[in-house]
Amino acid sequence: MVTKEKRADAQRNIAAIVDAAIDCLSRDPNASTSEIAKAAGVGRVTLYGHFPSRADLLDAVFLHAIEGGEAALGQVDLTGDPREALTRLIESSWHLVDRFRSLLVAAQDALPPGRIRELHADPMVRVERLIERGRAEGVFRTDLPTSWLVGAMHSVMHGAADEINANRLTPDKAATYITATVLAAFTPPGKPVPAS
Amino acid sequence: MVTKEKRADAQRNIAAIVDAAIDCLSRDPNASTSEIAKAAGVGRVTLYGHFPSRADLLDAVFLHAIEGGEAALGQVDLTGDPREALTRLIESSWHLVDRFRSLLVAAQDALPPGRIRELHADPMVRVERLIERGRAEGVFRTDLPTSWLVGAMHSVMHGAADEINANRLTPDKAATYITATVLAAFTPPGKPVPAS
Repeated sequence: MVTKEKRADAQRNIAAIVDAAIDCLSRDPNASTSEIAKAAGVGRVTLYGHFPSRADLLDAVFLHAIEGGEAALGQVDLTGDPREALTRLIESSWHLVDRFRSLLVAAQDALPPGRIRELHADPMVRVERLIERGRAEGVFRTDLPTSWLVGAMHSVMHGAADEINANRLTPDKAATYITATVLAAFTPPGKPVPAS
Repeated sequence: MVTKEKRADAQRNIAAIVDAAIDCLSRDPNASTSEIAKAAGVGRVTLYGHFPSRADLLDAVFLHAIEGGEAALGQVDLTGDPREALTRLIESSWHLVDRFRSLLVAAQDALPPGRIRELHADPMVRVERLIERGRAEGVFRTDLPTSWLVGAMHSVMHGAADEINANRLTPDKAATYITATVLAAFTPPGKPVPAS
């Protein structure tokens, strides 16, 4: 029984730390581990026991944010014209990227290159399927591999977050710019770029 | 005289450290500061005297690589059809990004988010001018700001380096994919995407 209680305690602490980290890092990407432990109501030793490094903590926090976002993205209507479906998916995805923009900065700082893209595996499957359908219906280009198109969309979307952080773009315009850029980039050679 | 000699010594050491760092980090993005000091033929204390942190060293090394690249990019013919000029500029730029791909990983790991884009200020001015000319000639879109188009091209190009590092793309295909994607993304709405 003691072990079971201890395990339940540990689960509660981990959940409290991850929730507190999302709160703190969404306000300030440089929020310290001590601040996060304090906000979670646990000691620093407890936090380090579960997350030995800042990278370990950021990995768990970022994955938790992605998993939460998956619930919202699962609601997006992906039927009908693939370009309109992609527009809806970009709007909802951007809403999440923008909400977690400060957390993204913290993750870019703490996680090894490539890891952020890896943590996006689930949302990327959804994008991949929609691109495949658009290719089959002749509205998205087939002269470049699907994996490349998925990566290009990811790069443009996260680039928008960087542009906002550098004060070259305001958040209200981002979804429109990303959509116009991605729909043009996905258009088959010889076909007209859709009006934005 | 002693001060002048000391200053010349310091300049020689800095140059040797930066050159050695480019060599070492191009082979292995995780090359340690000790390895770099050894390759430069200086002591670790001397290296830390000039570059107190890994971020200080990477900042100087990355800027040096960019400045070296500027000499090559300055040779690219940017006259004539803006789409053909952009194709030539992407090919030459990609050659540099690919050559310094391992250094880019090291810089992404050591430098704060946004800093790599800042260090690209000079090559970005060249891209910006070409885009402005293409907009004036009606071949590039004007419904999105020039700064956004510059950023999108930067994101797609550096995204290609990430794709190669993750084994989802081979270096020989990258320039073609980047060019096809960027030319489509820059096409004015209603106009056909150029054949790739």
